Amino acid sequence: MSIGKTIWAIAEGYIPSGSAGEDRALVSHETACLLNCGERDAQVSMTLYFTDREPVGPYRLTVPARRTLHVRFNDLEDPEPVPRDTDYASLIESDEPIVVQHTRLDSRHPNIALLSTIAFGQGRG
Amino acid sequence: MSIGKTIWAIAEGYIPSGSAGEDRALVSHETACLLNCGERDAQVSMTLYFTDREPVGPYRLTVPARRTLHVRFNDLEDPEPVPRDTDYASLIESDEPIVVQHTRLDSRHPNIALLSTIAFGQGRG
Amino acid sequence: MSIGKTIWAIAEGYIPSGSAGEDRALVSHETACLLNCGERDAQVSMTLYFTDREPVGPYRLTVPARRTLHVRFNDLEDPEPVPRDTDYASLIESDEPIVVQHTRLDSRHPNIALLSTIAFGQGRG
Amino acid sequence: MSIGKTIWAIAEGYIPSGSAGEDRALVSHETACLLNCGERDAQVSMTLYFTDREPVGPYRLTVPARRTLHVRFNDLEDPEPVPRDTDYASLIESDEPIVVQHTRLDSRHPNIALLSTIAFGQGRG
Repeated sequence: MSIGKTIWAIAEGYIPSGSAGEDRALVSHETACLLNCGERDAQVSMTLYFTDREPVGPYRLTVPARRTLHVRFNDLEDPEPVPRDTDYASLIESDEPIVVQHTRLDSRHPNIALLSTIAFGQGRG
Repeated sequence: MSIGKTIWAIAEGYIPSGSAGEDRALVSHETACLLNCGERDAQVSMTLYFTDREPVGPYRLTVPARRTLHVRFNDLEDPEPVPRDTDYASLIESDEPIVVQHTRLDSRHPNIALLSTIAFGQGRG
Repeated sequence: MSIGKTIWAIAEGYIPSGSAGEDRALVSHETACLLNCGERDAQVSMTLYFTDREPVGPYRLTVPARRTLHVRFNDLEDPEPVPRDTDYASLIESDEPIVVQHTRLDSRHPNIALLSTIAFGQGRG
Repeated sequence: MSIGKTIWAIAEGYIPSGSAGEDRALVSHETACLLNCGERDAQVSMTLYFTDREPVGPYRLTVPARRTLHVRFNDLEDPEPVPRDTDYASLIESDEPIVVQHTRLDSRHPNIALLSTIAFGQGRG
């Protein structure tokens, strides 16, 4: 089964620096959920865009065949960490069709807030 | 009226194990909302994808003609329950065009949080 | 400017009966936001789908040229009100291209939760 | 890399007048996140649609090449500010392909609520 696109964009990006606690599950974070239903590993390259400086990347990762990978932007380190409290956006390019969904958990306040959307996909599907 | 696609993917999936209470309406849950506007019953097969093991499925269900079915992932039992506190994703295949929307209600904290998005659709529409 | 589709589906639908207060802005509600950027009024017909009974409709309304109409499902009365605490879905058909976005405000708990997604569009665009 | 569409619509729009505090990050707001992955600056024109009066615009802005711009509707001033507590919708036209995502942060209550969705895109991609 092959489903998805090879180029995806997430125009929203913002990691609040504050969190109500230290629990990893409840720390404020943004996630790109990548799904590879195909029979070949997908080599993925992410690029981050900002308001007032050149893009940063590529961040490289692999989504193995028949696997999903939920990538926390908070965890990206190479080539550099994602700044907190800063507007950004992301471009995700894959050599195999994948599906991308974007989620943010915001726990600046005692109670959490969530958002999610399918990303914008284009290219070979 | 026929509307929809025959293949859908939801790249995000995560059922928190914690809930603020026992009320079924407010227990933390994830839902795939399936809509069949057509005149023929839709035979649907769901497959779950994980980060570090082979996909699980198919979970089989029927969305009757002119009906909607809001499937809680929490309730899936056959071939096996969906693990809590675990990243997953889902692929939904139907023999008739359907429309799929994804929702999560998170009630780990005293107040609830919600997310929702249209799934990614492909195939005969 | 003409933008949109003529057939839209929202697979999710659920109006909680409970609300934290009486303020119309904060009562639990679901909304279909309709946008008609065109130069002709759009005649719109909505049909509601349920889990265990035949569809209900049509609910008829007009989105005038160059206007947006945010329709609360709570306010629908003819041919019948939308039941609370009940899973439903909706099909929206228009004689002119429109754009449809779905939103729920849930105020069962003292603090509100929100969800939103673009609907699934098909047909002449 | 060129990704996106040249015409986008966001059918939902509503800026609550109330906020739990004065902190800019936590004031109730709506945002259109615009991403231009291309090598040419994008000249963007926004038009706002209402329920009972003629559209307002254009609001003009530039998304430079290889940049993202997260536009708060709260900040729009020319030709006129966006009214609070009022249903609206928006049309976004660009001379270069861009990607648009819509977000609202609602802080009327002590705790925040979030929603987000990809906008509806059309035109040269």
